[in-house]
Amino acid sequence: MKLSRREIAMAALLAGAALAGGEGEAAPVSVTERIEHGPRPSADPSYFTKVTGGEYIAMVLYPGMTALDLIGPHYFFSTMRGAKVHLVAPTMAPVACGQGVTLSPTATYADVPKAVDILFVPGAGFPTLDAMKNDQLIDFLADRGERARYVTAVCTGPLLLGAAGLLKGYRATANWGIRDKVLPAVGAIPVDARYVVDRNRITGGGVTAGIDFGLHLAALLRGPDNARVCQLLAEYDPAPPFDSGSPHKAWPESVSLVQSMIASFSDDLVKAGKARTNRA
Amino acid sequence: MKLSRREIAMAALLAGAALAGGEGEAAPVSVTERIEHGPRPSADPSYFTKVTGGEYIAMVLYPGMTALDLIGPHYFFSTMRGAKVHLVAPTMAPVACGQGVTLSPTATYADVPKAVDILFVPGAGFPTLDAMKNDQLIDFLADRGERARYVTAVCTGPLLLGAAGLLKGYRATANWGIRDKVLPAVGAIPVDARYVVDRNRITGGGVTAGIDFGLHLAALLRGPDNARVCQLLAEYDPAPPFDSGSPHKAWPESVSLVQSMIASFSDDLVKAGKARTNRA
Repeated sequence: MKLSRREIAMAALLAGAALAGGEGEAAPVSVTERIEHGPRPSADPSYFTKVTGGEYIAMVLYPGMTALDLIGPHYFFSTMRGAKVHLVAPTMAPVACGQGVTLSPTATYADVPKAVDILFVPGAGFPTLDAMKNDQLIDFLADRGERARYVTAVCTGPLLLGAAGLLKGYRATANWGIRDKVLPAVGAIPVDARYVVDRNRITGGGVTAGIDFGLHLAALLRGPDNARVCQLLAEYDPAPPFDSGSPHKAWPESVSLVQSMIASFSDDLVKAGKARTNRA
Repeated sequence: MKLSRREIAMAALLAGAALAGGEGEAAPVSVTERIEHGPRPSADPSYFTKVTGGEYIAMVLYPGMTALDLIGPHYFFSTMRGAKVHLVAPTMAPVACGQGVTLSPTATYADVPKAVDILFVPGAGFPTLDAMKNDQLIDFLADRGERARYVTAVCTGPLLLGAAGLLKGYRATANWGIRDKVLPAVGAIPVDARYVVDRNRITGGGVTAGIDFGLHLAALLRGPDNARVCQLLAEYDPAPPFDSGSPHKAWPESVSLVQSMIASFSDDLVKAGKARTNRA
């Protein structure tokens, strides 16, 4: 099997992240570039029948969360045969996400093992503020995050990891609108990237970044060959009709519009983050 | 406001689709190309407060459906202030989608107005076959589809529209794995594209195609300027870690693997499609 330079770089990155495991001072890596079409190791023909892993993946639900933040990576986690992918909440009562989407938990906090393979937290719009002040949620994240193999979040979810004290000294990303201002308030070092791997913390940008992040995690846990098959199953060959998906590409008027909408909200998030940090 | 050639082409496309409204022989349009970064009309500052439209959007839930097919476009529909975005099912009982995701309906079939603005159907994996044989679901689609302003679906959802007699003579796309073999069995003309607009039928490819499709529909209903802001809110600036999202880009081994997995399944879908067509 011959590998291109990009394939080798990706393999090294995956291996490095898998081995880092939370200790030491491994250099943070931000990954945004596409891996080129490479050589062709044969796909594993037992992929769809083989039950491997048995990883426990805890995806946290909370009121007002953005469903797409979670459902994106959930798709890829669910393609990992044998993995136990759970939507977790304090009780089994359905959780009203934003915009009329209501999701049912599959496990309660108490059901979740002490040491999970992936702890994942979605983001939200304005309800992020309530979530940062939600002791039950933040205490759960702090407890399971301490022992999880990977501690992960996208959009404004990294602020909740930060509120739980899990990002102190870690490089991280988050929704572009609040990243640079609010992440430092919880001790994290903001990085402008689609997703960021720093030791065992993996964070993604806003909403749809969860899809790229999820595919990356599937590759970390089950290898890049399997992840490529999952990408084909998801027909994940994006073709947005516009090119306005980041503040670097959108019209300045669009960026200003969003920033003006969230200015006082991000001030409130900074306050909530600092209150948590001072308390810890 | 100066427009680039691509902007003008997009505007013409949007206007054409909006005007076509189901009659006549308007040329089908398949849209996969990105619109380049263009000139800068100012974004509408009242976007986030103005309640316009009041469109009724009926997104159909059924057992075993793929949650991401629906949650992707739902995100963009939900950013349309004033739109009534509903998850619909025969009763208000939660619907078990595939892979442990359970969604709660927000309206029953009986609650849905006779003439909706968007009728949307997500796809599924193997449960598509049961859905094609589900009279209650197919009858609902046939009834509302007859009067809907836009009749839409992604992934294997177009097969359900087809089973309801709604794609006869229409160009359409669907999940690449079943598109060319099964769409003709329900009278549709398969097109290899991320999404396809033919008069008021709009269909998307597999799973994540729903995101591009959803952004396109948001542009159709509320204009491309607003859609660009929504894309920024979703931080939809995709950066997949691999380039394996279509059969044209994936390794042939991956393509064969998926095809071998679904070979007898797609035969069954063809039979179910023909049975529906003969009955109608």
